[in-house]
Amino acid sequence: MKPHYVQVRPEDNVAIIVNPEGLPAGTAFDSGLSLNEAVPHANKVALLDISSGQPIRRYGAVIGYAERDIPAGTWVREDLVRMPEAPSLESLALATEVPAPPEPLEGYTFEGFRNRDGSVGTKNILGLATTVQCVAPTVEHAIARIRTELLPRYSNVDDVISVSHAYGCGVAIDAPDAAIPIRSIGRLARHPNLGGEPLVVSLGCEKMQPDRLLPQSQLVNASKGLPPVLELQPYVMRLQDEELRGFGSMVEAIMRFAERRLTELDARRRVTCPAADLVVGVQCGGSDALSGVTANPTVGFAADLLVRAGASVMFSEVTEIRDAVHLLTPRCATEDIARDLIREMRWYDDYLARGKADRSANTTPGNKRGGLANIVEKALGSVAKSGTMALTDVISHGEKVRSKGLTFAATPAGDFVCGTQQLAAGMNLHIFTTGRGTPYGLAMAPVIKVSSNTALAERWYDLIDLDAGRIASGEATIEQVGWELFRLMLDVASGRKKVWTDHWGLHNALSPFNPGPVT
Amino acid sequence: MKPHYVQVRPEDNVAIIVNPEGLPAGTAFDSGLSLNEAVPHANKVALLDISSGQPIRRYGAVIGYAERDIPAGTWVREDLVRMPEAPSLESLALATEVPAPPEPLEGYTFEGFRNRDGSVGTKNILGLATTVQCVAPTVEHAIARIRTELLPRYSNVDDVISVSHAYGCGVAIDAPDAAIPIRSIGRLARHPNLGGEPLVVSLGCEKMQPDRLLPQSQLVNASKGLPPVLELQPYVMRLQDEELRGFGSMVEAIMRFAERRLTELDARRRVTCPAADLVVGVQCGGSDALSGVTANPTVGFAADLLVRAGASVMFSEVTEIRDAVHLLTPRCATEDIARDLIREMRWYDDYLARGKADRSANTTPGNKRGGLANIVEKALGSVAKSGTMALTDVISHGEKVRSKGLTFAATPAGDFVCGTQQLAAGMNLHIFTTGRGTPYGLAMAPVIKVSSNTALAERWYDLIDLDAGRIASGEATIEQVGWELFRLMLDVASGRKKVWTDHWGLHNALSPFNPGPVT
Repeated sequence: MKPHYVQVRPEDNVAIIVNPEGLPAGTAFDSGLSLNEAVPHANKVALLDISSGQPIRRYGAVIGYAERDIPAGTWVREDLVRMPEAPSLESLALATEVPAPPEPLEGYTFEGFRNRDGSVGTKNILGLATTVQCVAPTVEHAIARIRTELLPRYSNVDDVISVSHAYGCGVAIDAPDAAIPIRSIGRLARHPNLGGEPLVVSLGCEKMQPDRLLPQSQLVNASKGLPPVLELQPYVMRLQDEELRGFGSMVEAIMRFAERRLTELDARRRVTCPAADLVVGVQCGGSDALSGVTANPTVGFAADLLVRAGASVMFSEVTEIRDAVHLLTPRCATEDIARDLIREMRWYDDYLARGKADRSANTTPGNKRGGLANIVEKALGSVAKSGTMALTDVISHGEKVRSKGLTFAATPAGDFVCGTQQLAAGMNLHIFTTGRGTPYGLAMAPVIKVSSNTALAERWYDLIDLDAGRIASGEATIEQVGWELFRLMLDVASGRKKVWTDHWGLHNALSPFNPGPVT
Repeated sequence: MKPHYVQVRPEDNVAIIVNPEGLPAGTAFDSGLSLNEAVPHANKVALLDISSGQPIRRYGAVIGYAERDIPAGTWVREDLVRMPEAPSLESLALATEVPAPPEPLEGYTFEGFRNRDGSVGTKNILGLATTVQCVAPTVEHAIARIRTELLPRYSNVDDVISVSHAYGCGVAIDAPDAAIPIRSIGRLARHPNLGGEPLVVSLGCEKMQPDRLLPQSQLVNASKGLPPVLELQPYVMRLQDEELRGFGSMVEAIMRFAERRLTELDARRRVTCPAADLVVGVQCGGSDALSGVTANPTVGFAADLLVRAGASVMFSEVTEIRDAVHLLTPRCATEDIARDLIREMRWYDDYLARGKADRSANTTPGNKRGGLANIVEKALGSVAKSGTMALTDVISHGEKVRSKGLTFAATPAGDFVCGTQQLAAGMNLHIFTTGRGTPYGLAMAPVIKVSSNTALAERWYDLIDLDAGRIASGEATIEQVGWELFRLMLDVASGRKKVWTDHWGLHNALSPFNPGPVT
């Protein structure tokens, strides 16, 4: 591959080196630029002389100011870039550049499991939700037996999993912030891929009592037999029930409880659903400087296709859009939606300040080695995942997506927390871009992993589902890879294709967001 | 069983009903008292008429004030008890009633695995520590293969586990409170039952880089072979290393890495160690009103025996001792130790206040159904676990126990968080009392479960290791059951007896305390 850099916008004064091994000092480009020092892969080079204090531009936006004079051909390392202030939340343009309604995209479908509440599952999983971590090992013990003794008889059921978490007791259950983990876990229990109607295992003495989690749930005495039809509502059993004598009887009760629901789940079949029934969550993790040039714009293109097809698309990660919020508030469909977005930014600013941190805590050592100087540069690349459509809704932490189109679902930015919270919001398909590489996966919904660079896709050939790195080398366009991704989504959602993390069974622990204190 | 109540101190004006089914209205006791309403098991009855506003006394201390006139024979429910203010931290007596040094208890030993750092393991486990949740499923995948393919060849190794957690990235790693989870996880990785010298799996781009976790660790390229002797120091491998091509090679590398350490662990043998090498953490969970009368004083008696034998004993759970701190500061060996204890109380008061909560958030629905009116009553019963010896050290969240004798190790009070933090402090044996019952267990150290009432011990015959409920019925004394517990500890620590949670493999997820924000 000959020396190659990617300049995103004509007004940018830095560009990204895309040669996988980086380039040595003295390298000359067709443009006439030559490197006056070695620049690693995915790192930035100055295209022009930039004087001390002058803006450094990428994505057509200011990612920082030069700490000293930076001659053309210099490696623009993190320490040469002074981070700008976060955009003030007081003077943002609200709904001033709302994109026109898109041309509808019709005729795309997938095969899914339709639930009674109208949601659609992309998997057919028996989920055993838990009210508290105390019961999780007991439920896991039962699940190991269900997997070997029961599941083979129910071939239409994909898996059996526990919805377990570190919450439920030892927490300030009435503190204002407790509402977030409680509603998040309640939503996880009712996830579309679990059929929407949970079975819940409770201990009995925990703070998060089942009626806090699922007010409509019905307590059953699992040692005495179950109602004839379970599907009418969520059911709860309690390990401290006096009728359960010994651990063996607890496990037996959970298995009886599970077998009844397995019978119901097994009777379901995939039916043809419009692409509009997809609820897609997009996320990036282990990003590098190419993420914003290849993988994230590809996801943005596919997000536009989904919105045109009438689907729900959510993007998230408050600290990664905080510094690009001035690009989003004009795109909001109404001023109220823009104000909701600002409210979520402010809430998180306050939350971080309480912990004596700010949004600069976001970038990781890997981001920096990957060429991202700071959260501003990361945010500008991250927001590309949202595509170009109008932002038509904003939901808060642990709330459920309530509309078609593009939603901002507030979540933290850490991969496993964001993924958990997007599941809580009802995501039935997950798109995850990465530059550095991570074997992250979710049990509850398929995770399609898109690499920002071909070197990663080649090295991790059995973990990366789609390579967007071909865009940097000019082998493919964003549009081409975007359509590939869209078609792959329909295949994966239909169960026709299996993502790598499901192939290997790589499923991260659920990590519901708990901003409140533990006691 | 004839009608029976337990009055802890002569000056108490309430007592606890110990009949397992509770007692109906009209029940007459030998003392002449008769019930003017039904009182459930483990709940309180007024022994005398208590006028509105007058103190209600249990354990010889004020647990609250009467909300209205309470005639003798009345069920003293939560809503009749107005909670007192927490003891002020400004005017506590410091080291004013230091117990005399105890008579040494000699000749008690157990069989343990001695580590190079001087610590002693009660198990011999291969632990694979992780720097971030992202790698946990990969490590679990490898562990499943190690269990079936390798472990059977190493019969002196008890188990292979991952030290996984929800921390490591997506957190404000430089925020002041981040020190707590970082040092906690570093300590967990070096736990005595894992041989004290960890193998660590890192992703590569995470915020909690291996050198933050274990500054002395050495990075190895697991795809190229390992140093000839691993035991010299902790070793780290990184999934993003460029030499690792594909998921299969990651798993193979972890397995090679693990096999080398299995060989070393397998060569170890149990040796006779003085009881002084025990580091015992005591905890209560799912407490009822009998916990403070039976199980906790039994643990306190055994704690005294341990201190006399030269062992380290830690008690914890800040919010459960906050309201009894005035009973502890006089017992501190020096004024400095008392001030350290006050510092931990103050830190937690502030932490809860930041989250708009206070220590009253501690009690659970189960505590209340179990007859505990509030955190004051719970704390007075909880602190009985600490026995009667001088308090000779106070350590903060995630610090390691550094001395023999009785230590207060600051932790939250939630079972799985407290257990995790006590493991981080170096606990090699865990004593857990319960009244309501919980199947809680830990993979890293044995958990001896002591029931506060016989009804639970009978119902959960295959989960409770020792029944202290016999004390309430007069069948046994605290001293008798305390000695039983002490001997059981030596048997369990030696591997001669297996606790029930290890029999069933019931091991809760590690939940390191993270008071800081996620990003």
